[in-house]
Amino acid sequence: MRTMFAVGVTAVFVALSGQPQQVDLIVYNAIVVTVDSASRVLPRGAVAIQGNNIVAVDSADTIAAAFTARETLDAGGQIVMPGLINTHTHAPMVLYRGLADDLSLMDWLQKYIFPAEAKTVTREFVRAGTRLAALEMIQSGTTTYADMYYFEEEIAAVTRDAGLRGVLGQTIIQFPVPDAKTPKEELARTEAFLKQFAGDELITPAIAPHAMYTLDRASLRAARAMADAHKAPVLIHLAETADESATSKKQHNMSPTRYLESIGFWGPRTLAAHGVWLDAADIQILARKKVGVSHNPESNMKLASGTAKVPAMRKAGINVGLGTDGAASNNDLDMFEAMRQAAFLHKLITRDPRAVPAATALQMATIEGARALQMDDRIGSLEAGKRADMILVSVTGARQTPMYDPISHLVYVARGDDVTTSIVNGKVLMRDRKMLSLDEAAVLKEAKEMAVKVRQAVGK
Amino acid sequence: MRTMFAVGVTAVFVALSGQPQQVDLIVYNAIVVTVDSASRVLPRGAVAIQGNNIVAVDSADTIAAAFTARETLDAGGQIVMPGLINTHTHAPMVLYRGLADDLSLMDWLQKYIFPAEAKTVTREFVRAGTRLAALEMIQSGTTTYADMYYFEEEIAAVTRDAGLRGVLGQTIIQFPVPDAKTPKEELARTEAFLKQFAGDELITPAIAPHAMYTLDRASLRAARAMADAHKAPVLIHLAETADESATSKKQHNMSPTRYLESIGFWGPRTLAAHGVWLDAADIQILARKKVGVSHNPESNMKLASGTAKVPAMRKAGINVGLGTDGAASNNDLDMFEAMRQAAFLHKLITRDPRAVPAATALQMATIEGARALQMDDRIGSLEAGKRADMILVSVTGARQTPMYDPISHLVYVARGDDVTTSIVNGKVLMRDRKMLSLDEAAVLKEAKEMAVKVRQAVGK
Repeated sequence: MRTMFAVGVTAVFVALSGQPQQVDLIVYNAIVVTVDSASRVLPRGAVAIQGNNIVAVDSADTIAAAFTARETLDAGGQIVMPGLINTHTHAPMVLYRGLADDLSLMDWLQKYIFPAEAKTVTREFVRAGTRLAALEMIQSGTTTYADMYYFEEEIAAVTRDAGLRGVLGQTIIQFPVPDAKTPKEELARTEAFLKQFAGDELITPAIAPHAMYTLDRASLRAARAMADAHKAPVLIHLAETADESATSKKQHNMSPTRYLESIGFWGPRTLAAHGVWLDAADIQILARKKVGVSHNPESNMKLASGTAKVPAMRKAGINVGLGTDGAASNNDLDMFEAMRQAAFLHKLITRDPRAVPAATALQMATIEGARALQMDDRIGSLEAGKRADMILVSVTGARQTPMYDPISHLVYVARGDDVTTSIVNGKVLMRDRKMLSLDEAAVLKEAKEMAVKVRQAVGK
Repeated sequence: MRTMFAVGVTAVFVALSGQPQQVDLIVYNAIVVTVDSASRVLPRGAVAIQGNNIVAVDSADTIAAAFTARETLDAGGQIVMPGLINTHTHAPMVLYRGLADDLSLMDWLQKYIFPAEAKTVTREFVRAGTRLAALEMIQSGTTTYADMYYFEEEIAAVTRDAGLRGVLGQTIIQFPVPDAKTPKEELARTEAFLKQFAGDELITPAIAPHAMYTLDRASLRAARAMADAHKAPVLIHLAETADESATSKKQHNMSPTRYLESIGFWGPRTLAAHGVWLDAADIQILARKKVGVSHNPESNMKLASGTAKVPAMRKAGINVGLGTDGAASNNDLDMFEAMRQAAFLHKLITRDPRAVPAATALQMATIEGARALQMDDRIGSLEAGKRADMILVSVTGARQTPMYDPISHLVYVARGDDVTTSIVNGKVLMRDRKMLSLDEAAVLKEAKEMAVKVRQAVGK
């Protein structure tokens, strides 16, 4: 807040004094969709960026009068909006994209994914997969993502090199996995990881206990204790399937949410993914504990998991972000698809076409996702003082013509492919579809080589 | 069947005799997804085309040995598949794309769309809208579409010029509409239209009584009689909303399907759009009468209309094709989205991830749509003797990498934008994303001008 105020004052002072302030970058000639508290849309707007931060968002004329820039970027009438925040994925699983479809979560996980992971996940696999995922995310407008996987330090290194922002959670799970044999070993890896990336500008290291059904009580509590000691975020799968709910009730005589409450698991900086099978009492617990929820409509549909009660959760005050889940269960990392699907799904299920209107879906994919990750002081909207994380979205093709309402178009018409330019932390990662932070051809080549190994390992 | 057999014999004879047959076009270096009765996928395949027809679909080596071509098209490893069949849309409504969202069907129709139509629909509007729709359809892989709108003769003329195949239905509706004041006037227009395009290679003129709730008994019966006299297809909206069902039960003490049966409406060559609120008896009637159904998952979700019982309809033997509905309620004409949504939606609603697997969604968008339109003798699969309607789909981008299964990718990963080349009736309409049958810039310019008028008319 201090920064915002100071910058605001500076900008006004400079404008009044008639001496334009020099900044690093001005994006102009844009329809600016701010997703700020007033939901401002500036039909002819501009954004001024200095270093990692946004210093002003205003009409193009006001920005032109107040600032000069070392570099300018003509948006050519495109939409400029906050970068999308994918609150739940497993980045390297892009390498399993389409490996097994038309299966329930439990069959898919236990018969295909866990065995494939046991045979193929290595440091090299994780690096190649994360590079491919980063490429896809940048190309489709994601600027921040929350991740849960193995060898998370490799994911963090690749993510930082690619220029993306990440809340990256090292997985803790009860059975032997590719990067550790026991939860204890995982906890040790996690602690090292939390220390390694502490204070990083782009990477927020986190701890990711997989789920209440894949961890015992001691491991869940140890994960919480470590998170508290390091003030690290906690990412967990929660109540994704009816099976998980039923098993919890059988074993603990409680829902997954109440079981986790009973062992003191819920605490600050926590994000629960899915939350499909929550009852009213569960929702109250999550609201009271200020747990954010990541809603993954496409994955929940494809795996026939069910429909999260998004309108009820939001009404209870829970911050609900959107996620794609891993590309092995979706089958992409396109947050525009997640937005449209969230809007479509809840209209259908509630039989109320206003259940999740376009503006709400857009908020969930940006500012509300930021709130769910407790990063809304830095990201999620285009406002002075926040980090310069934004994307340009083209709206001139046949399938985008005509355009009566930019918000409607962003949710009901736009796709990841329409993103032409991506800026994270003030740095341009892609410009006019040309990748600047990753060597696209090399990433695709490496991914295809890795896929040959996957195919051999699973006999496909 | 006669043609297929003859062509097959010719091809084999020529191959044996060692003298290659000359054809017009060979598409080679392709993954050929045939959607034939054996669901053949040829990993290194080719398609030979002579005039309007496919003469052979086989491995690239076999085709190379049997044929020479005046023109060849290197698919560069892309997927070649049957062109997509959009069984329900209102083409010119692309000009209302995003004009009003987050509304129920009845509100949307009565408060926004019908008034906007009354003020803006002219011949000129219909031509401009159809050109824009044709551009979007070609760019996203549709090669045949079924339409219901006004001034359908204009739609037919533009569709033929654009090179698309269409089953185009002139609307009959009880109240005054832009192209006629009464159903009688509509019927007269329709008869002229049926005669004008009789026997056309690309256009099948049809009659489109709007719905049972917007027409009286006499008009519905007159429409059926005219269709029978001209052996023309009939397109009708059926049981789209709970309102429609409730009103029918109140007024006629019958479901919409049974009411239409009671007045002798059901007959040959009939396609019912939506079919959301059908009970088991309704489904039996449609199956017995061999009525095809157009399933529109995106529109039904966005307008909160409900979920059609697609697995039950297909089990009863009904041919269920896919449709986008008009772009004003979707908000696009992308049949890849319709495929993915059909696969996702029925998994969720039935809680069975196998309810509509990828292969089924693909069939619904191609051969089953052709069957629903009773055109499967000509289109819907890549087979010798059928019309040469096919598309090339790129699968090399980051979000398509890796690819383990082409069918999975076509349904869960591909988008309309991945279509690079479109061939209809043997004619290349788009090649490597370059439009050949339409002037893209002129179409977009005209559409934007028309949108200015729409904006003025509705005060938006």
